[in-house]
Amino acid sequence: MPLRVVRTIDEVRTSLAERRGSGTIGLVPTMGALHAGHARLIDHARAECPTVVVSIFVNPLQFDRADDLAHYPRPLDADLALCERLGVDVVFAPAPDAIYPEPPDVTVHVGATAQYLCGAFRPGHFNGVATVVLKLFDIIQPDVAYFGEKDAQQLAIVRRMVADLNVPVRIAPVPTVRETDGLALSSRNQHLNEAERALAPGLFRALTVARDAVASGVADAEVVKRRAAGTLPSDERLRLEYLELVDPRTFQPVQRVEGPVVAAAALWVGKTRLIDNVLCTPPA
Amino acid sequence: MPLRVVRTIDEVRTSLAERRGSGTIGLVPTMGALHAGHARLIDHARAECPTVVVSIFVNPLQFDRADDLAHYPRPLDADLALCERLGVDVVFAPAPDAIYPEPPDVTVHVGATAQYLCGAFRPGHFNGVATVVLKLFDIIQPDVAYFGEKDAQQLAIVRRMVADLNVPVRIAPVPTVRETDGLALSSRNQHLNEAERALAPGLFRALTVARDAVASGVADAEVVKRRAAGTLPSDERLRLEYLELVDPRTFQPVQRVEGPVVAAAALWVGKTRLIDNVLCTPPA
Repeated sequence: MPLRVVRTIDEVRTSLAERRGSGTIGLVPTMGALHAGHARLIDHARAECPTVVVSIFVNPLQFDRADDLAHYPRPLDADLALCERLGVDVVFAPAPDAIYPEPPDVTVHVGATAQYLCGAFRPGHFNGVATVVLKLFDIIQPDVAYFGEKDAQQLAIVRRMVADLNVPVRIAPVPTVRETDGLALSSRNQHLNEAERALAPGLFRALTVARDAVASGVADAEVVKRRAAGTLPSDERLRLEYLELVDPRTFQPVQRVEGPVVAAAALWVGKTRLIDNVLCTPPA
Repeated sequence: MPLRVVRTIDEVRTSLAERRGSGTIGLVPTMGALHAGHARLIDHARAECPTVVVSIFVNPLQFDRADDLAHYPRPLDADLALCERLGVDVVFAPAPDAIYPEPPDVTVHVGATAQYLCGAFRPGHFNGVATVVLKLFDIIQPDVAYFGEKDAQQLAIVRRMVADLNVPVRIAPVPTVRETDGLALSSRNQHLNEAERALAPGLFRALTVARDAVASGVADAEVVKRRAAGTLPSDERLRLEYLELVDPRTFQPVQRVEGPVVAAAALWVGKTRLIDNVLCTPPA
């Protein structure tokens, strides 16, 4: 069946009503500017679900900076071509007005899970993420939704939302896709110039240093973090926003590593903010 | 079919899975201590839905005072007998741990709609209401849910939540049931002693004075409110918490009455807090 592109809530509900009942519906929620990381999410959905829906919506509610929202890439034609090639059934690409006909008065609020890392540096960001994800779940009513592990705190928050609000959707995490030099794929990578692009893999390298330190038995989080951050080249174009070791479920920082932790970091490379994370497991 | 009483989320989902697909499921969410007002809700559900679910859960998240939570009546046997008599199919009566296995970190947040009236006097109350209602919707996945008009601000908030979060549930309002002297039925009425019970109908009387003033063309909200509050007997057992004219959808106070408004009030009668409201329509 050819790809069906729908713009309104009524259209997407109608187009899925026919398919509901004939097996699971898988949703890949995206903000567009699709890359190989999204393709991996879609591939997972395609392998598991008779019906695959991709949503493409640059959610204004989750942007803390107006210029970031304005400059976020929106290459819809290329996105649709990729979805078609990957065998997506339905793309839901609503206009902002379809999702927010008026400013929402009832929203989703995230507590401690959003307290640190990106949540600390991007006020309101995760409330906006949680709100739009819940709306998309309520609009599309998928059985499964696929989220990339690259956005680890987002994934933890969506899982917590599903648990705390009893949302009847299974959350399927999908491993991060990386360039050969380790840089995690991101729609923001296209903002990097050549020199910045050469610096960017330092983020993943630092995190692997944290992973190796934890694996070798270093349990003092401060030591791990210092060792990891110390590997970043001193370059005026690089600014480390945070590098933290957190509990994989609660996303609270740990002082001592006594089980698996997530090493997560945000690095400004010029005017581009990159995030990445690596699961770190101490020796048995 | 006999009434089925279930205690866990798995049980209620399983017991409804068989019935889903054979017509609509109607939910009447309650905190128990059922009275003729709840019976009216159940009757409406019974008339419209092949499957009627009543939830009975005293939601700790919506109580701002611990003593109020502790003293809230919980006559479960009588409640189940009433449900059986009214032909309810499933009663979902979970323990607090089933709904909140841990303190929720992701909750529902209500903005301006909860800013005045009960929202102003009961901090966090409506966030707790919205959170548990959304959880019950996600657990039970009803097609329709029935709410009493007596809790007018709650009804407005649930409607706003359904709109803002695209919740696929139809909200059906049901008119307030009153004693012959006008007192709105409430589980809290049983806390009134004889003298307090005699004073309690003053609340509804005051609201009907507001309604009559608006109907007669008084457009200045201050005048309407003063006239209504002025009818309350001066008695040390009575304390008017608020009496306000608000927009029926946004629940923002109005200064001039230029269309239908809700006159809403909360009155303490001794140690019991009663609320009521009346829709007021100006002359055409």
